[in-house]
This record gives sequence, structure tokens and C-alpha cells, in this order.
Amino acid sequence: MREAGFNTVRVAEFDWVHLEPREGHYDFSFWDRLLEDLQRAGLKALFCTPTASMPAWVAQKYPEALAVKRNGQRIRWGARKNACLSQPDFRRLSRDITRAMAEHYAGHETIIGWQTDNELQEPVCYCHHCRKSFQQWLQDKYGTIGALNAAWGTHFWGHTLDDWSQIEIPDYWISNPGAMLDWKRHYSWLNVTFQQEQIDILRPHFPDRFITHNLMSLFTQVNYHELARELDFVSWDNYPVWNSQTVRYEASLVADLTRGHKARNYWILEQTAGPPGGPTFMRNPWPGEIRSVAYQQLAHGCDGMTWFRWRTCTTGAEQYWHGLLGHDGVPGRRYREAAETAREFHQLAPLLEGTTVQARAAMLYDYDSLWGTEFQPQFEHNDYIESLKRYHQACFDAGVNLDVIPPDRDFSGYRLLIVSRQYVVTAALAEALEAFVQGGGIVLVDARSGVKDGCNRCYELTLPGLLRPMLGVRIDEYGSFGKDTMQVPLAFEGQDTPFPETATAIHYADWLTPETAEPIARYVHPFLGDYAALTRHRFGQGQGWYLGTVVQEPAFYASLIRTLLQEAQITPEIAVPPGVELSVRADAAGQRRLVFLLNHTAEQQVVPLPRPYRDAFSGETVETEVRLPSFDVAVLRNA
Amino acid sequence: MREAGFNTVRVAEFDWVHLEPREGHYDFSFWDRLLEDLQRAGLKALFCTPTASMPAWVAQKYPEALAVKRNGQRIRWGARKNACLSQPDFRRLSRDITRAMAEHYAGHETIIGWQTDNELQEPVCYCHHCRKSFQQWLQDKYGTIGALNAAWGTHFWGHTLDDWSQIEIPDYWISNPGAMLDWKRHYSWLNVTFQQEQIDILRPHFPDRFITHNLMSLFTQVNYHELARELDFVSWDNYPVWNSQTVRYEASLVADLTRGHKARNYWILEQTAGPPGGPTFMRNPWPGEIRSVAYQQLAHGCDGMTWFRWRTCTTGAEQYWHGLLGHDGVPGRRYREAAETAREFHQLAPLLEGTTVQARAAMLYDYDSLWGTEFQPQFEHNDYIESLKRYHQACFDAGVNLDVIPPDRDFSGYRLLIVSRQYVVTAALAEALEAFVQGGGIVLVDARSGVKDGCNRCYELTLPGLLRPMLGVRIDEYGSFGKDTMQVPLAFEGQDTPFPETATAIHYADWLTPETAEPIARYVHPFLGDYAALTRHRFGQGQGWYLGTVVQEPAFYASLIRTLLQEAQITPEIAVPPGVELSVRADAAGQRRLVFLLNHTAEQQVVPLPRPYRDAFSGETVETEVRLPSFDVAVLRNA
Amino acid sequence: MREAGFNTVRVAEFDWVHLEPREGHYDFSFWDRLLEDLQRAGLKALFCTPTASMPAWVAQKYPEALAVKRNGQRIRWGARKNACLSQPDFRRLSRDITRAMAEHYAGHETIIGWQTDNELQEPVCYCHHCRKSFQQWLQDKYGTIGALNAAWGTHFWGHTLDDWSQIEIPDYWISNPGAMLDWKRHYSWLNVTFQQEQIDILRPHFPDRFITHNLMSLFTQVNYHELARELDFVSWDNYPVWNSQTVRYEASLVADLTRGHKARNYWILEQTAGPPGGPTFMRNPWPGEIRSVAYQQLAHGCDGMTWFRWRTCTTGAEQYWHGLLGHDGVPGRRYREAAETAREFHQLAPLLEGTTVQARAAMLYDYDSLWGTEFQPQFEHNDYIESLKRYHQACFDAGVNLDVIPPDRDFSGYRLLIVSRQYVVTAALAEALEAFVQGGGIVLVDARSGVKDGCNRCYELTLPGLLRPMLGVRIDEYGSFGKDTMQVPLAFEGQDTPFPETATAIHYADWLTPETAEPIARYVHPFLGDYAALTRHRFGQGQGWYLGTVVQEPAFYASLIRTLLQEAQITPEIAVPPGVELSVRADAAGQRRLVFLLNHTAEQQVVPLPRPYRDAFSGETVETEVRLPSFDVAVLRNA
Repeated sequence: MREAGFNTVRVAEFDWVHLEPREGHYDFSFWDRLLEDLQRAGLKALFCTPTASMPAWVAQKYPEALAVKRNGQRIRWGARKNACLSQPDFRRLSRDITRAMAEHYAGHETIIGWQTDNELQEPVCYCHHCRKSFQQWLQDKYGTIGALNAAWGTHFWGHTLDDWSQIEIPDYWISNPGAMLDWKRHYSWLNVTFQQEQIDILRPHFPDRFITHNLMSLFTQVNYHELARELDFVSWDNYPVWNSQTVRYEASLVADLTRGHKARNYWILEQTAGPPGGPTFMRNPWPGEIRSVAYQQLAHGCDGMTWFRWRTCTTGAEQYWHGLLGHDGVPGRRYREAAETAREFHQLAPLLEGTTVQARAAMLYDYDSLWGTEFQPQFEHNDYIESLKRYHQACFDAGVNLDVIPPDRDFSGYRLLIVSRQYVVTAALAEALEAFVQGGGIVLVDARSGVKDGCNRCYELTLPGLLRPMLGVRIDEYGSFGKDTMQVPLAFEGQDTPFPETATAIHYADWLTPETAEPIARYVHPFLGDYAALTRHRFGQGQGWYLGTVVQEPAFYASLIRTLLQEAQITPEIAVPPGVELSVRADAAGQRRLVFLLNHTAEQQVVPLPRPYRDAFSGETVETEVRLPSFDVAVLRNA
Repeated sequence: MREAGFNTVRVAEFDWVHLEPREGHYDFSFWDRLLEDLQRAGLKALFCTPTASMPAWVAQKYPEALAVKRNGQRIRWGARKNACLSQPDFRRLSRDITRAMAEHYAGHETIIGWQTDNELQEPVCYCHHCRKSFQQWLQDKYGTIGALNAAWGTHFWGHTLDDWSQIEIPDYWISNPGAMLDWKRHYSWLNVTFQQEQIDILRPHFPDRFITHNLMSLFTQVNYHELARELDFVSWDNYPVWNSQTVRYEASLVADLTRGHKARNYWILEQTAGPPGGPTFMRNPWPGEIRSVAYQQLAHGCDGMTWFRWRTCTTGAEQYWHGLLGHDGVPGRRYREAAETAREFHQLAPLLEGTTVQARAAMLYDYDSLWGTEFQPQFEHNDYIESLKRYHQACFDAGVNLDVIPPDRDFSGYRLLIVSRQYVVTAALAEALEAFVQGGGIVLVDARSGVKDGCNRCYELTLPGLLRPMLGVRIDEYGSFGKDTMQVPLAFEGQDTPFPETATAIHYADWLTPETAEPIARYVHPFLGDYAALTRHRFGQGQGWYLGTVVQEPAFYASLIRTLLQEAQITPEIAVPPGVELSVRADAAGQRRLVFLLNHTAEQQVVPLPRPYRDAFSGETVETEVRLPSFDVAVLRNA
Repeated sequence: MREAGFNTVRVAEFDWVHLEPREGHYDFSFWDRLLEDLQRAGLKALFCTPTASMPAWVAQKYPEALAVKRNGQRIRWGARKNACLSQPDFRRLSRDITRAMAEHYAGHETIIGWQTDNELQEPVCYCHHCRKSFQQWLQDKYGTIGALNAAWGTHFWGHTLDDWSQIEIPDYWISNPGAMLDWKRHYSWLNVTFQQEQIDILRPHFPDRFITHNLMSLFTQVNYHELARELDFVSWDNYPVWNSQTVRYEASLVADLTRGHKARNYWILEQTAGPPGGPTFMRNPWPGEIRSVAYQQLAHGCDGMTWFRWRTCTTGAEQYWHGLLGHDGVPGRRYREAAETAREFHQLAPLLEGTTVQARAAMLYDYDSLWGTEFQPQFEHNDYIESLKRYHQACFDAGVNLDVIPPDRDFSGYRLLIVSRQYVVTAALAEALEAFVQGGGIVLVDARSGVKDGCNRCYELTLPGLLRPMLGVRIDEYGSFGKDTMQVPLAFEGQDTPFPETATAIHYADWLTPETAEPIARYVHPFLGDYAALTRHRFGQGQGWYLGTVVQEPAFYASLIRTLLQEAQITPEIAVPPGVELSVRADAAGQRRLVFLLNHTAEQQVVPLPRPYRDAFSGETVETEVRLPSFDVAVLRNA
């Protein structure tokens, strides 16, 4: 590993059974020896609490520690991530093993930091402990059962509750929306508090080491904003090589989102080393891809990276989650690419110090809106994250960095905000957005925003509700296009429109009337023809845009984002050809800047430069263009 | 509501928990006040028994009142329609709340009638009470276990039973067909008897008021013929605006079926007021559609209509089942359309008095055949109701009213009977059909008719079994076309055939030999070429037609129905263009007649008239044609 | 039945409840009378143990005799094949009824043999008895828990076990592969031992009669090689008439596999008599098909045949599994075809005596590899049996008989071995294959062979692992093509290649480097272009071929098989046109030979003959060609 240029090993993730072979009997001998070996080899360890995989003796001694599925069946032991997080014994055992490890290794110099558990997010448990925990959580939140009845609107269907003990886990496909959202929040809270207990134990013994957790990209069971709060920084597990070859839009979005959780750089704890997979494995990264996948994260603010995994395991359920070495342990092409990447990263390290992405455009990412849309999609094909992706991809193609941030973040550093499917709009958010536009900001809002309050009740307001003054529009009625493929062409106002000739509304349409806004696009349709599809509202010093439908063509979103960037006076540094990604890291002063160009295609790409740059490795001047072979990367500095 | 022209409010449907907050403690204060308010406003109330939604305290106190799913899991409380109808406590509580309401409001002048429960049809429960109830029901039906063994043919697979207690709920995909049919009948019976208990309690306290129930269109769990028996009239909940825009064939069929349950006019208790939906909602009715949807029902025999719902609810699971008013409560386009409709209906009321649809053609609708086909489809894509729809649509397009009736109805008023997928044919039905044809009637029978007796046993007869003499054909063998898309062209006999050039047999074919019948169509196929696909048998004064396959082209069914109507001497009043529906209501004497023309398309339609009519509203003469804008309606009287 | 030419009736299959109406009370009166009737009619009986259908009283008295589904729900009684085979009471009752029948009918002259149970293969049970049985089976196999931990590699995910009682049934989608394979083996073993108990009871009472079992074609729950071991011969239930008409490749493969289980001829216990089916039934065999389906089995080594069923049952779950007679019991076309077939078989009997198929090519069929691939498909669309079918179909089309054999069979009689998806390769198999090639044999191996050892652990070897010396290739890396339809053209080496111009790699590719082998085909692809797709290795006196991908075009497999046959000096007797099957039965000396030509198409086929033959029925010489009408058959002898 030293030879490959690596300096850190991530360990102990699922090793509970060996660390504690029987309840209260600990055995650290293996890890003591390993830490000595690592120290001798000049390597550091990133330790994990091992609670993601329950030992067999736990399941046998405490059967209720195993989670219960939605159908009432208790999970059979034999997988990982099978614990009920509200079961008291399991919680105690989690604290005990964490404490034993923390005490035994307190301040060990080879341990540079900790990972809590692993990929917290499943399984959702439906046992009586969880029901009880939900009831208690609701009591703590609402105080009186009357307050809960009001918040949930239980008078509908005669579901008014007398007593906390009557509350059931809402598992019906059409359960009360308030109950559903609270159930989602409760499960997320359960994970956050489970982790918090481990953090509280680790901190005193490792006061100067970091604690992090490996998030699962766009998985949605846990509110990562809250899970991130008490961590030093967050990390994620990056596996973008999946199925056929595509431009890595999604890994770019996740990078921006991960950086956004705490508005700071992050780590990758599992970096793609080969074909991932379980019973079925995926394609093998093409030559160059191992390196470019790693570079993409570096370019977006990754400050530390461990690969999963060193050598492919010959046994167990993850036999086909391939490592840098295969089952045969012979170093090959994948090993060499990773080693080259590690060498280059070390070389760049001094330049990267203190830098991060400095975006002037941001997009909101809100768990209440995401969850609310999950169980009430409202129209066919409506997916919160897919909607965000349309805008993120348009920014990627435009060569502009975007922050993806929680709705309670300070907006003052931004010029453009994208507010997509913001189903839940609190008064505080409406106020913050209004102030942002008043002060000169550009905001884009789209359909089904402003529908709900924080209790997941519909506002008794004409839509877009609290955002109506800022957007200057009124939604008289609305409707889904159903499961069928109804398509409605859009017509744009004016002669010199930046929008493409063909734009097609699909899935849904607001019946939108501009009040003080100006229409930018209208529907071409016998009945919808009276209504606007896209509007702009000059409001204060800024502009509030509203898009009342879904448009089929990515070219529409590209032109919309270009227009909004222009209005926001955000100019891309370099115009990139399709499939080439641009990302810029800079220090706070904006002096030390690293410009990353990543070719995500299997063909050579040529990127024309607007001005000369300097190659970050060779120091040579790059005058007019950069030639990037397939999956290659260029790192430039100001000339 | 008064302003909108409405006169009745449907109330209390799910309000059990407020009417009886604890067992045996009743609180009528809210409803007392409401009835006073209604009275002051000149409105009437249609009261509902509230048993479709179990209060939380019932589930907590009597956990077995919650139904058990097929997988053995008890439903978690939190939805509606979650009760086991055989559980003794739930039955008692249902009677108690019904009795308390009946006694408290006995004869109240503001209450014009009652709705029992709501949309009886689910959930099918698999608990031990239901198993026991099934065993008792079978014992009452068969008397001896030997009779049951014979009826079910349990000797097959060695399933002979010794004792009633051995009977299991048949839930296997390939269970005994006799047991399956009886299990279906038992569940239906359970609903009918559950409702009967409420009727028996309500009647003495409201001897001069109606009792009705809101049926669920084509839902099949409950035998609506039996559920209708003790009601004054039936009602249904009409939501034809779903997904993309289509001609409303199905709502037309349901109207004819609903009218058929009791051979009398019916009500709509939930009339489409806006986009319906749960987690996902559907399209918004286009301008004019709210009105035309309501008119379609009026034209088919609807005598009363309440809309669901007045204002869209901001909480609860039905947030997106939209009302005439939106969440904001602002009266808009939908409100105005409904108000216009109400005004027009009041204007038509005197003309409608005593009128109904007077059809000379009828189609059988039989629960035994429907259920039997449900769990034994016999060939891929075979669906009882879809088969009926083919014929109903052809009649709709021909502009001819059709009654959809149970097989034990008196056939004497009809000239044409359509008997589709009549899987179960009892001796009584065979006799009635034979007499009908003997007396000059035209009958069309199609494939898989006459296969089973009333115990769901195959007859030991060459098909079409008891119908063979009437049809004059013999089915030597038969076969499905499987999952693949085998297609066999048909060739028609004779030169001047009324049938289209292209007709394609799909899914299934009888290997059909005409005995005394004449072949009308044959298969064009190396092996099936010897067999007939369509035959006509002159029998007595009438004709027995038989169609031994499924035909792909709607044009074939159109020409078949036109031919049969001609033979039956039924002539459509007006030839309507595609998408325009004709329905006629008349009084018993046929003197006072209202001719409804409904444009179900988004374009204007012109209907040429064979003779002058008078506009029912303006009284003006309409000479040669009616111009109907999109979704418009004309009501004509004899000139 | 006598009239139809039949001589044997298969009886008592599900009749437990009548044979033992109460526990320990037996009633043989019905069967005594039937055997007398048969004897009088000159017919014989094939008796079945009736344990495939549990009487109602068993389920009522011993509820745990009913199997438990994967979701934890006990099966409701009411189907067949619903027993838990590890439940002690059920095992005892199975032995008791078998013993009672064996003793009562010991040596009865009308009984020619026995069938054990029926179609052993389901249901897989997840009850506590089965878990316990699995634990005991593992203890017997591994001896110490440490040995099991090593075999399964439980250190991964910290799943190390202390005690046998901790072992769970592995039911997770990504469970430990070693545990999964053992769980499959245990369930198979459970069936084998269940049958063995019946055999052990029957043998002493019927020492000179056969015992067989009716296998289920390609069903995979039970290792048929092991189930076959103690049987006199195996049988199978043949239903190739399903959905649309196709050439009967699969029935041909199953015939060869069934013959391979014991390397001897077999019986058909259920021969297609009409449209098969449950709730939905399939197409009716075309005229001629009843006969040709039967002939196909005769041609492949079938020595006895009973039809399922005589008359179609009018009750029970198999109402639509049609017999030779329909529900009406009228003998018709199907009856006449079967009678003709029976007559011809009797005529051929003397010629068939002592003959079987004498193949020089064989294909391995291995349950470890099949099961291993089942829960670890490795790449999308990878299916063990589908892969074998590609080669079998190519042999069928080439007119060459193939044996399908277990991997521990003696290979010495063969010249060509096809080794497809041989996921598990033991040292013994690697050695046997190497010896085979050394001695002059031709072996074809394809992708994902040699990956696993007998414990389902990946070898720590560069692939193809133990087969690498014989194949002369090295697999550096590999990857799936994912769910998407990536397609990579192949280019063949040399000018006069026998391979078709178009061959397309799909689904998966080894990154294959020939070491001492020669490349035959390469990929045309920017990154895969360096690697071989197909190689040949001259090794000892023979050749080891390797195919590292899946090819889309059947024509590729046709040319590959033709090339291999040529190298193996195997020449087809007659070149058959598409859709015509050739199969040859011969006696050990090769003197008495019967050449079967089967037209599986609906059109006439002409087969040119390389030399004159004699018609086996008429004895006339057939000079230059055979004309076969649709679904017709010719049986030829040497002229």
C-alpha cells in the first residue's frame, strides 16, 4: 500500500464479533497488532465503530434487536444493517462496544479519525419499540394530543386521537400526510441520535481527531443535513461506474450536495476500485476511468480519499464488489491507475490547501419537500431529485459550479437560487427568498412549490402561496397529464428569444395567470392556451421566475439556465464541449485557483481556452487549447 | 351552496369518532347544530352511517376488529375500510352507532334519506372469524359435508373433507374452483348482511325516507344485485375524468349497469368536481366537462346528484381529491360550471318526472361468471368486463340504449340479448334463453359460455352445453393462443357481407362445427380452417348467434351489433358521429321523451337530425342539425 | 383404454385421504376392486405413493406439517405439495402410508412398479424444523463450527459463528454465498432422503418391480442426479405444447438430460394429451402434434409412456389440464392420435429392445454451478440453463445427438465435451478435463467457469483458475455490460474462417489474454480491442477452446459447434433442414439402428438422404429423400 502511494487504511467496519466475541468480553489483540504493523509501515488508520453488522450472539441473545419488516416479519439474521435502532439492548450494546474501543485506543497516534457505523439509512423497522419511540417523539414534539390532531388534521376520516398510545405507524399507501412526514422525520432522528451516542463517547477520548460518516449519495431515508451537524466533516461512498458508460452528472451533483451539507469540503471513504456489485456486478472501469472518477471528486472539494477495496474478497456477500486487486491478488491495471492518481494527488496537495469550490449559484435541497413528494408525487413521474437533476445538469453543461444547500442556509453569498419542487415553504423561507430577490438576486421556482406548511397541510392560499408576491403569478387551477403521454407545445414570447424552437410540456401544468409578472412562454393548446408556462417577475432589485410545468427537452433547461446565469451576471470561466466538466477550486481570497477539466467521454476532446493558463504539474503555459484523451484530466492554474 | 343552486348536503360519512367518542357515549351536538343551520338555509341532509371508518378506540379496544391480509398480517389502523365484517364486536358496534343515530334523529324533517356505510367492497379479510363464518355459511348452504364434497369435487387431489372445521380459506392461485366461487359469494354475503343490519335498524325510524348505498362502478368484490335488493334505489360514485381525455364509454356502461341492478333510476352520490386522486392526482376536467359528465348520468337515468366535494380538504389522505372549490376556497371555473348545471337540472326537472331509459336491447351481467372468470381466465387477456365493453361500446357508437341486467331478469320486454362470457349457465337460464329465442328474440352468445354449472363444475357435455340446441353448434376442441401474439384472419361467407374486410381472431378459438347453424365466418389457417368462428342459428321465431373467438378490430363488433340490431328491428333514433352519445329518457307511455346528445370530444360536432325536434330549454324548433361545441350537450323534445 | 392400445394405468397419486381416512385406519377396498378390474381388462397398474397431497386431517391434527413460506406465513391447507419435509410427524405419516400400501399389495402381479410421491421440488420451507435440520446437516458435514466458518468465510461482515444454533436460513438477497449453496443442497437432500425412506419400505415388498419418480424437466430445486441414484430408472412429465408453436428444442434437451441422470433410458409418466394449464390453459396441440411429441421422446430413449390424462376432470384445480378425452368424455381427434401412436410403438417395440442413444459428444450439467449462478448471476441475463441451451440447440440443428451428464461421469467414451458456465470447478474435475484433452478430446469452456471451489469461495487464482493450463489463457480483468444494451462486434482471425460475418458480444466480456492459446476471435472496440473473445489451445493430443463472452447470434454457435464437431471427427448421419430433428437409437453393438426424423414444423419438409434406408414399418427402401408432412415422423433402418 505504501508502494501504491497510500497513507491511510480504513478498518474495523464490521468487526464487532471479533472485538467482542461474547457480551462484555473484548479482544483487541488483532487490531493492536495491526496498528503496530501500520505504524511500522508509515500508514495511518481510520477506525470505524463496528455496529453496522450485528454479531450472531446479539441476535440470538436479544432477538428483538433484529428489525421488523413492513409486513410484520422479523428480519432473519444473516445480512448486515439488520438492527432496530430503538431497541434498548441494541442501543446499549452499541454504546458499550464504542466505549470499549474508545477507551482502549484513546488518543492512539496511528488513528487519525473515526467513522461512525456505516451508511446509516436502513432498515426501517416496524416493531413495537419503534412504534413506542414514534409515540414518545410525537409527544415531545406536540405536547398535547390536541396539538397533534390539529397538526395532522385527523378530523378527516374520523381519525381523531384520544391518547398517544393509539398512534400507529402509518404504513398505508394513502395514510395521513402529516403522520407520514413525521414518521419519516422520526426514523431519520433515530439514526441521528444513534450516531450521536457514538460521537459523545468517542469525542472525549479523541478530542483532536476527526469523526465522520460515510453517506450514501442520494439515498433519502436519513436527513443528512442533521446527520452531518455534529460531525467534523462528512464523507460519501462514490460508485459512479454503473452499467453503460455515461457522463458522470450524478456524481457531480452528489459532490455538490455533500459539500453543501456543512458548507465545507468532504472525504470519499469508498472510492471506486473496480466493478461494483452484489449477485450481479457491473462493468469494469475503462482505462483512465479509475483516475478520472477520483479527480472529479477532488475537483468538487474532496480532501481525503480511501478506496474500497484493496483486494477483492474471496468469500462473503461482497465477493463481487471488486477491489484494486482481483481475487488473485495480482497488481494490475486498476492498481497502477490508482497508484498514479495517489502520486498526482500528493503532488497537488500544497496547491489544494485551503481551497474549495466558490459557487455564486445555489440550489435548495430540502428533506421535507423530498419526503413529502416521495409519498405524494402528485403527478406521474414526479420525482424530487430528478427535477433537481435537470437544473444541475444544465449548470454542469454550462461549466458553472453550483452549491446544493439546505433551505435554511444564508443566501447572501449567491446571485442565483434554484428552488425546485419546494413543496414545503415555511414563512421563514418565503421571507428569506423574498429578501434575496429584493436585494437583487435571481430566483427560479417551479411547479408544486409553496403547497404545504411545515405540518404537511395544504395552505389555504391560492398557489404559489407565500411565494405569490415575489413571483407575481396566480395559479387558478392545475392538473396532471395522467399516465398517458399528453404533450403540449410551448410558444415563447418575443422575437429574439434565447429558447429553443421546440419545447414540450409534459406530465403536469399549472393553469397559471401572470398578475404582475410577464409571461415568457405560453401553452399551445385549445384549453390551456390562456395560461402561461414560464414567467418572469421584476421584484425589488431582482427577479422571480416561475416554471409551471415539466419540459421534455434538456435544451430548454440549458437555455433557461444560460438566461438566468446571464441575468445573475455569472459567467463561466471556460466554455466546455459536451461531456467535459469544468470545476474550480480556489482559496478564500480567490488568489490560488485550480481549474479542473475532466473528459468524461471515451473520445478525445479539445477545450479552447479564452486565455493562457499554466499546467499545474509541469508548470508549462497552455496557450489556446487543451487536448484531453478519453477519460483524461487537466489541472490548470492562472498563467 | 344555496347560491350554487344545490339543495342537499351529504354528511357524517366517516364521523363515527365524533358521534361516539367512547364506547356507548354519544355526542350529537355538532350534527344537531348543523341540521339547524341547514334547515335555516333551506338545505336538506343525506345522512350516512359512519361505519366505513373505525375510530382509534375501536382498534385499540378490539384489535381483532381490524382485518387480516392474505399474508396473515393484521392491518395497521390508520386508513379507512379496515374492518373485519365477521368480527362480533365490530358488528355490534356498527349496530349500536346506527341505532343511536336512528333513534336520535328519528324522522328528522331535514334528513331526506340515508346512505349505508360507504363503498362496501374491501378489505377481504382472512382472519379466523372469517374462516369460521365461511364454514358456517357453507354448512347452511350444503347441509352435509358430503354434499359439499360433491359440489366441490374434492376427490380430486384427495381433498375430501370430514368435517366443516377442516375447511380453509382458499387462497392458493390454483385452489378448488368450487371453493373459490363460494369464498367470493361468502365475502359478498358478508357485506350484504352487514348492510342489512343497518337497514333493519334505520327503517322503523325513517319509514318514509329512502335508504341507498354508493356503489363503486365496476368493482367486483360485492354482488351489487344482492346489495341493491333491500335498498330503495342504488347510487354510485362517478369519476370518469381520469388520465387523458377519452370518450366516456365506461361511465355510460356503469350507468346502464347501475340502472339495471334494480331496473330503476339511480343517484350519483359523488359526482366529479375536480381532479380526483390520492398520492397522485389526475387531470383537471376541461372547460365544459364538469357539466357534460353530470349530463351523461342524467341522460342514463340519474335522478339525484351530490358532488364530491364542496371544498378541497387541506389535511388528511384525500388532500388531492379536489372539490368544486380549491384549497384556497375561492369560487372559480369549476364552481361556476356546477352551478350552471344545477340550474339547468332544476329547469329540466318537470320534464324528467317519471321518465327513464326504455331499452329494447339488453346484455347480461352475472357475478358467478364474472368471479369464475376472474380466478380462471382460461386464456390470456380474458376479462369478463372487457368482453362486455366491446359490445356496449358498439351499441354506444350505434346510438342505441342498452340495459345491463342480471341473468334472472324477465327478458320479455327485449328484442336482443347479448350473452357474453356466460361461464356459468344454469338450467333455468338455458331455458329462459331458449324460450326468448323461440319467441322471436335474437341472442348473441360468445366463447366460454355454458362451461360451468352453479357449483363451478364443468358440465359433462359437449360445449356450448345446455345452449347447444339453441345455437346449433358443437365445439369439438378449443385452445388458447397463449401469451404470444398469434393472429388468425377471418373470412366471411357470401358476397354482400356487412362485415369489414379485415377481422382478426386473437387470444382463443373454439374448434367450432355448425350442426344446424349456418357459418357466417371461418378461420383462414392451415389447421383451424375447417372450423367456423361465427354462426347463426334460426331457431323457433328467433335466432341464436355464436362467436367462438375474440376479434381484434372494434369495427367487427360495430358491424356485428348493427347486424343484430337490424335482425331485432331496433333502429337508432339519430345517427350520431363518433364521440357523440345519444340517450333517450321517456315516460312509461313513451309520450314525454327527452333526447340527450352529448359531445364527449374536445372539438365541435355536428349531428344531422332525421326530423325536426324542439330544444328542451328554449322551446325553439331545431330543424336539420345540432351543432355541439366541445363537451357541450343538447336536450331535445319531440317537435 | 385397451381399445386405444394402452396397457398400463398410473394410479393413486394423490389418494392418501381415501387410503387412510383417519390416522392409522386404512381402506384399500376401492383399489382392490380397481386392480381386479384392471386385471380382467388385461391392464397393469403403476402405483404411486400418495404423499404429494396431504389429507385435511393431517393438516388439522399436525398444523406444523404445513410448510412455512419465506415471509414466515404458514401455507393454508388447500393445495397440493404443501408439506414441510423435515417435520417429524409428516415424515412418520409418509412412512406409515407407504408401508401400509406396500404390505397390503406386496408383490401384487397387476402392479408393475411404483412412482414415489409426485414431482418432488416444492415448497421450500422456512420453519423452525427446517432450520434445525439445516443446522444438523451442516454439523454432519463440517464437524466443527470452525470448519464451517472457514468454508463460508464468515469473517466477512463479522458473521463468525460460535455455535450451530446460531445458524439462520440464509434468505437475504445478498446472503453469504457459501451458506446459500449449502441451503440449496440441504433442501435437495431433504427431498432425496424423504424419497429414500419410501424406497426402503417398498423394495422388500416388490423386489422385482421398478421404482421410479416423475421429474420436472428443468426445474432446479432438487439435484436430480442424487434423486435418481436409488431409482431403477427416472421418468419425467413432458408438456412441450405451450403458447405458440415452436420447434421443440427444450423437450429435446430435457430428454438428453433425463437420459443422462443415470446414463440409461427413461420413462414419460405424464405425456401431453391436450392443452395443459391451470387458471389459464394453453393452445391445443395441432393435428399430428400429440403423436410427434410422443415420438420425440421415443427417439431420445424413452422406454415407457403414460399419458396425462385419460379424461379431463370436471372438478378440482386441474379442470383445465386437458386429457385425451374432454369434459364430455367423447373420444375425438386427440384420442385417435394417441391410439395410433400406441399402435405404432407396439409395432416398433422389438426393434427398440436394447437400444439407446449412443452419443460421442456430451455437455456437463452441474447443480453446484447452476445453483451458484442462480443466486449470483454475475451479469445481467446470465442464466445457467439458457447458456446450455445455446449449445444444445446448435447440436440439434447439426443433427447430432448429445449426452447431458453430471461432471463426475466417466468422459472416456466421448470425443467432444461442452463445459458451459462451470462456475464451480473442483480439482477432480479440472484433472479429469485435462486428462480428457491430453488424450485427444476437444473441450469447449466458456465464461465464468472455474471461478469457485466446492465451498462457493472464489479461488485465489487468476481465471480460468484450475483450467488455465488446459486452456492456455489468462483473464486479467472482466466486466458485465450492465443492464444496457452495449454490443461489441467480433472479428475473426484468418481468411477462411468458418464463422459468420456478423457476431456480436453481449452482456459480458472477459479481458482475455491468450498465453499459449491462439486467438480465434477478437473484440472490435476502443478498449476491449486488445483482448481475445474466442481462443483455441492445442494441448496434448486434444484442444481446449475458450469463449469469454456471450454472442447474440445463434449462427455463431452453429458454426462454433460445426467446427468443434469437425475437430472431434463427429459427422452427422443426415443433414437435416431447419425444424427437423434427427435422433438415432442403436444397440450396444451398433448393429440394430433406428433413425428417427421428426418434423417439428407446420409445413412439409423434405430430408435428402445420403444413402438408401429402409422404412421401419413398411420395410420398403427409401432411396433419396424423405417427405415429412407437418408434424410427421419417419423411422428408418439401415437398408
